Amino acid sequence: MFGPVLGPVLGPVLGPILGVDPGLSRCGYGAVVRDGADVRAVAAGTIRTDPKAPLPERLAQLQLELEALLDDLSPVAVVVERVLFQVNARTAISVGQASGLALAAAARRDIAVTQYSPNEVKLAITGDGAADKRAVQYMVTKLLRLANRPEPPDAADALALALCHSWRARLDAALVRGGGRS
Amino acid sequence: MFGPVLGPVLGPVLGPILGVDPGLSRCGYGAVVRDGADVRAVAAGTIRTDPKAPLPERLAQLQLELEALLDDLSPVAVVVERVLFQVNARTAISVGQASGLALAAAARRDIAVTQYSPNEVKLAITGDGAADKRAVQYMVTKLLRLANRPEPPDAADALALALCHSWRARLDAALVRGGGRS
Repeated sequence: MFGPVLGPVLGPVLGPILGVDPGLSRCGYGAVVRDGADVRAVAAGTIRTDPKAPLPERLAQLQLELEALLDDLSPVAVVVERVLFQVNARTAISVGQASGLALAAAARRDIAVTQYSPNEVKLAITGDGAADKRAVQYMVTKLLRLANRPEPPDAADALALALCHSWRARLDAALVRGGGRS
Repeated sequence: MFGPVLGPVLGPVLGPILGVDPGLSRCGYGAVVRDGADVRAVAAGTIRTDPKAPLPERLAQLQLELEALLDDLSPVAVVVERVLFQVNARTAISVGQASGLALAAAARRDIAVTQYSPNEVKLAITGDGAADKRAVQYMVTKLLRLANRPEPPDAADALALALCHSWRARLDAALVRGGGRS
């Protein structure tokens, strides 16, 4: 009764976790906030760049908007989907360039950055590492109790990344409290 | 005699052209300045990041150093080697990430940015689109009348990009003057 005041077992309110599904034409973003056992979405959308503009300008615009997003949301963690060149060789370079901008922007602000592969996220969210985009949209809508399915799928993928990371962060915290990590 | 003073036929002194051979462990850079018919090297080296550091930190450090390079040299043009994932699939993603940072940094400063493929540069510099790194180093040393071969090869590749672009810029200017372009 007279000891230090501790947060609830599931942990106190933390800042937002921002997920980024990198892409040059459409870069998905989605942020969630955990409040005890509850996780809710606080932002979701896409950053788009004009496919007719020169590549350097598109990258500069994407970088500017990613930086603005980090400044607006002040996330405590950023999660970026890992680019696997096997998945889509045609767009792997531009997706890689977009991911590099997101990773660097977060690191420049001393925000913890994690990467998950598409399969890790799909497995965590839907139970199936090979789930399609509609299945991810469906589960994200359900898990975050959203009124509407996040559109386009890139926004749902970004929310899935953030949600996935909020669960891992909670598990890690529980393991630390329980002495489960040496 | 009393008309406006024009530069020599080959054009006036321009600002530096900066070549960037993107990479995460070693990012080559090299700048040349054209003074009439003469082209000389004004900077060459590599930006290195610690392979043991986390990827986001390495990208942030590379970005910071690329930005410092642009601020120090104030180039009038930046030339970045185009990343072809076919060439080295293992490193294509990280090279793509590094190239994205270079392209965005230049575009953010309103500096004209061009990309050349490795084959275009090798062909222009050595006459052989499949030339090896030593051949590029040899020709860069000779063409820029350098006392020593630029080391590592990434620095020579970056100088080759800049040199290649200085020739193209001169050709373009000549075509404009001669009405060769509509």
